[in-house]
Amino acid sequence: MTERCDLLITNVHAATMDPSIVGGYGAVEDAAVAVTGGKIVWLGPRKELPDCAPDKTLDGEGQWLTPGLIDCHTHLVYGGHRASEFARRLGGESYEEVARSGGGILSTVRATRAASAEELYRAAEPRLHALMSEGVTTVEVKSGYGLDLDTELKQLRTARRLAQHHPVEITTTCLAAHALPPEFDGRPDEYIDLVCEEILPAVAREQLADAVDMFCESIAFSVEQCQRVIDCAKQLDLPVKVHAEQLARTGATAMAARSSALSVDHIEYITDADVAAMAESGTVAVLLPGAFYTLRETQMPPVDKLRASGVCMALSTDLNPGSCPIASLRLMMNMGCNLFGLTPAEALAGVTRSAARALGLCCSRGVLRPGLRADMVLWPMETPDQLAYEVGALKPAQIFFAGKTVGGRDVTAG
Amino acid sequence: MTERCDLLITNVHAATMDPSIVGGYGAVEDAAVAVTGGKIVWLGPRKELPDCAPDKTLDGEGQWLTPGLIDCHTHLVYGGHRASEFARRLGGESYEEVARSGGGILSTVRATRAASAEELYRAAEPRLHALMSEGVTTVEVKSGYGLDLDTELKQLRTARRLAQHHPVEITTTCLAAHALPPEFDGRPDEYIDLVCEEILPAVAREQLADAVDMFCESIAFSVEQCQRVIDCAKQLDLPVKVHAEQLARTGATAMAARSSALSVDHIEYITDADVAAMAESGTVAVLLPGAFYTLRETQMPPVDKLRASGVCMALSTDLNPGSCPIASLRLMMNMGCNLFGLTPAEALAGVTRSAARALGLCCSRGVLRPGLRADMVLWPMETPDQLAYEVGALKPAQIFFAGKTVGGRDVTAG
Ligand SMILES: [Zn+2]
Ligand SMILES: [Zn+2]
Repeated sequence: MTERCDLLITNVHAATMDPSIVGGYGAVEDAAVAVTGGKIVWLGPRKELPDCAPDKTLDGEGQWLTPGLIDCHTHLVYGGHRASEFARRLGGESYEEVARSGGGILSTVRATRAASAEELYRAAEPRLHALMSEGVTTVEVKSGYGLDLDTELKQLRTARRLAQHHPVEITTTCLAAHALPPEFDGRPDEYIDLVCEEILPAVAREQLADAVDMFCESIAFSVEQCQRVIDCAKQLDLPVKVHAEQLARTGATAMAARSSALSVDHIEYITDADVAAMAESGTVAVLLPGAFYTLRETQMPPVDKLRASGVCMALSTDLNPGSCPIASLRLMMNMGCNLFGLTPAEALAGVTRSAARALGLCCSRGVLRPGLRADMVLWPMETPDQLAYEVGALKPAQIFFAGKTVGGRDVTAG
Repeated sequence: MTERCDLLITNVHAATMDPSIVGGYGAVEDAAVAVTGGKIVWLGPRKELPDCAPDKTLDGEGQWLTPGLIDCHTHLVYGGHRASEFARRLGGESYEEVARSGGGILSTVRATRAASAEELYRAAEPRLHALMSEGVTTVEVKSGYGLDLDTELKQLRTARRLAQHHPVEITTTCLAAHALPPEFDGRPDEYIDLVCEEILPAVAREQLADAVDMFCESIAFSVEQCQRVIDCAKQLDLPVKVHAEQLARTGATAMAARSSALSVDHIEYITDADVAAMAESGTVAVLLPGAFYTLRETQMPPVDKLRASGVCMALSTDLNPGSCPIASLRLMMNMGCNLFGLTPAEALAGVTRSAARALGLCCSRGVLRPGLRADMVLWPMETPDQLAYEVGALKPAQIFFAGKTVGGRDVTAG
């Protein structure tokens, strides 16, 4: 390393999540971490630290440092809410009754179309703040409540604007193929024409999306329609992700794996062959236990098989107004363990290393390693197992985004 | 009302939770609320507000005011944590293997006995802060990880000390009959002797407990043993609560109802006759969905029957290191709906009006009504249904404890 550095953290344990270090957390106890120019430049056992002249030092007080958390699947820019629909369903109305009277995803589409850009921004901001307060330093945000060119652009621009004003990185995904807009009722192929011929090209032109996503399910789009969206994304040089097999087996995961998708998300109903295909293609499994919980699903994703096949498992909030109005990635770690049987170390990998990979960003973040961006969280805990075990009381002591302190208890309290 | 008042809030909707006002929330839209001397002195439609000269006014900006939340069942003062046990179980070890090697409740007893009063205080404080940040203004705290005189007293004194240093009311409950301490192995009746002859009398002498609780279950104490604890509490003039029928039907609820217990808590396995007995005695059902969730239980409490019989249903965190390390009452509102089928209005009643009743405090709080203490929370929401629907992003704008602003986004943000 160079002799001087911007920041040196000592008296700290590092859960590096680096798979080349033995143990689920890639733990380096009694570590030192040096940061310069927003990147980690040295990390290792403190006693091996070379001479160095830091501009600033931080005593970690024996706490644990982890990579900044990454929420790799959210729909956090939307208008309105569906609280009254939630109340009606709990009051005894069926999903169909609620949908017939204008509830469901299309009610969010109406509210998102009606909202001004400023209203969308102000509605999304508390959701982003909630994630950031938990140590989230990278958030993916999808469109998909516009379902027309202008509103899809409005959603994506809002996501970009959120990033400009907050110390967090936001990656954006165009999910125009999320649902069939009412004006295309009975004409899904024509809507897919619009997605491929107008919406995605415009989004690409404005560089508003880092990836393309689609909802492949009987209530949304068919495998064939999704294949068209994938082909279009490839032509535009955009990586793809697929909402796949949440409600039934459709073949979406096999298609996604054939297309080298970054991730397939949900995947409660995939088969052994699908798991093998994912392992082969390196496609990440994004598990969304909050939607599973909210929808009272019973079919679990095949975690044991994914683990045995070496498929990377990410965990995410799926933050959205219908199936998961829960802005807490830490709660998803707990649910990933309690509902899906992940280990606490797998849960932390799921919101760091594997989440980075689900976004195609594993070269720059998701583990603590020299050369990677210094997105890091210092936690007042005795073992990283506490991150998935506890909900609510365990809060970051300090949050670093590209090496700069941007939040945490020690900062806001003092 | 008197002409002058300390504080007048207008441009606000009140979810009073007053059952004498029609609708689940006892809503008064476009209300005015006047506070003097820490109490509500007037509440009603703004256009009916009499002439008044407030020292201070607050524009509610069209937001909703609710009673301060009440967490009526917590074990938040304890030493250590059980994260590693959590990890071991998720790694495939059975509950028995974990218990045999020193895990389970007795590991918390060891850690709590070993902790100094100061350590217990510092460990409990972030848990209390987490609840307070959600608008909780009254918290019940149980002992029960001491299981000897000194440690039970240490836990209860720690709870009292937390209240002295925070703008929140803490009620304390002695749960010495929580588990059989190892030194009484095979001699449960002798431990109950200790509880009745030494621990409870000492606790009463120091006025360290507002109630007495017990764990009536095959893995803890029998109905006969619990009846002795109840009889002792009655002699000491302390109200009782019972951890009842979480794992099997034992008859604990019937016993509790006969003894006019304030509440029975958990009650997954109660019968129709038990429900009728509770309705007759006015005993509150305290539902604990977080423990149900963490333990992956499948037997739900009979919510439909409790509702039909007019039994008050409270909701609480059960915050504890084993079956619910979750310091979030708002999440319990969401789980109460999603897991137990409560309506959002029942969930809010469960953490306000009914929770007050479960603590014997319904004369002083739990609804917004003239004469009651001005424990109130102002929420940036369009409908109170959002409180159970959303997790994470919706935070209090202002929290009032006995009429004084003590927290909330508007306050901490500057
Ligand atoms: Zn989604
Ligand atoms: Zn309990």
